[in-house]
Amino acid sequence: MKRLTPWLIVAATLAGGVVFTERAPRHAAAQQAAPIFVSEIPSGYRDWRLISVAHEEGDLHSFAAVLGNDVAIGAYREKKPLFPDGTIIAALHYRHAPSEENNKAFGRDQSFVAGLPTNIQFMIKDSRKYAATGGWGFGHFQDGKPSTDAAMMNACFGCHQQMKARDLVFTRYAP
Amino acid sequence: MKRLTPWLIVAATLAGGVVFTERAPRHAAAQQAAPIFVSEIPSGYRDWRLISVAHEEGDLHSFAAVLGNDVAIGAYREKKPLFPDGTIIAALHYRHAPSEENNKAFGRDQSFVAGLPTNIQFMIKDSRKYAATGGWGFGHFQDGKPSTDAAMMNACFGCHQQMKARDLVFTRYAP
Repeated sequence: MKRLTPWLIVAATLAGGVVFTERAPRHAAAQQAAPIFVSEIPSGYRDWRLISVAHEEGDLHSFAAVLGNDVAIGAYREKKPLFPDGTIIAALHYRHAPSEENNKAFGRDQSFVAGLPTNIQFMIKDSRKYAATGGWGFGHFQDGKPSTDAAMMNACFGCHQQMKARDLVFTRYAP
Repeated sequence: MKRLTPWLIVAATLAGGVVFTERAPRHAAAQQAAPIFVSEIPSGYRDWRLISVAHEEGDLHSFAAVLGNDVAIGAYREKKPLFPDGTIIAALHYRHAPSEENNKAFGRDQSFVAGLPTNIQFMIKDSRKYAATGGWGFGHFQDGKPSTDAAMMNACFGCHQQMKARDLVFTRYAP
């Protein structure tokens, strides 16, 4: 293995310490570039309007209602190429659960409904605060608490970056 | 074929005319007993709040967002045993469609989204107007036009009657 060069040692030391050398500006920039995640659930999200619905199979078996605040709904309806600051998109996730009572009524196994709630995810647009992650803050809440799984949270931006043509947003508006 | 009895002739005459005999109350009841369906799309339904999501397989491959007007949402949240007059529930149906762009981003086939819109169904509670169908008026709209398929429309009440314990409503409120 290569030994650490002096430059790398300096950089590693600075990363955890107080900034008081000529490297200060560069370090401050590095701090800004660290991802910031959404740490509080936006109030009133359950009353927001519908963007669309979603269903993930694979290992997830997840059923979602995707809602947007007024800024989000306005941007979707006006087909804005970029969502303005203040946009919040909420994905309310539930288990994708078969409905025994519906199947009984329909006389066949065909019906799936929202089962137990699993998590709620948010995307908040604030191009300054969340500059490091394309202007979007990502949040993942389970039982009302934000996720502390750094690997999972860091993956949000990486995955959403694949949707650059739609300002990092997967969900299309359902008419 | 049996000839019409005088009683039936009287009734038939009355059916199209002004009620001025002692048969009036019975005749009015008979008129009420004919199913009445919802013939106009309630305005503003796309801005209503979310009740839940639904997915029907079998022959349907249907994806739904179920929305409610303020009366509906209030009744659900207060867990009222009966929905009050003025309640409207809207089921916005789409094709349950695989999403190629999502699957590409996720690296596996797992994602389903709202495809083309197929129909919108409404249930409107008006215990007088829709007395013949449990106080609910049923409506089914395709391309903005109400269904003229009598068999299908008559089937609504029959099927929903199986949900008597929940005032004929299938959809439960998703938290």
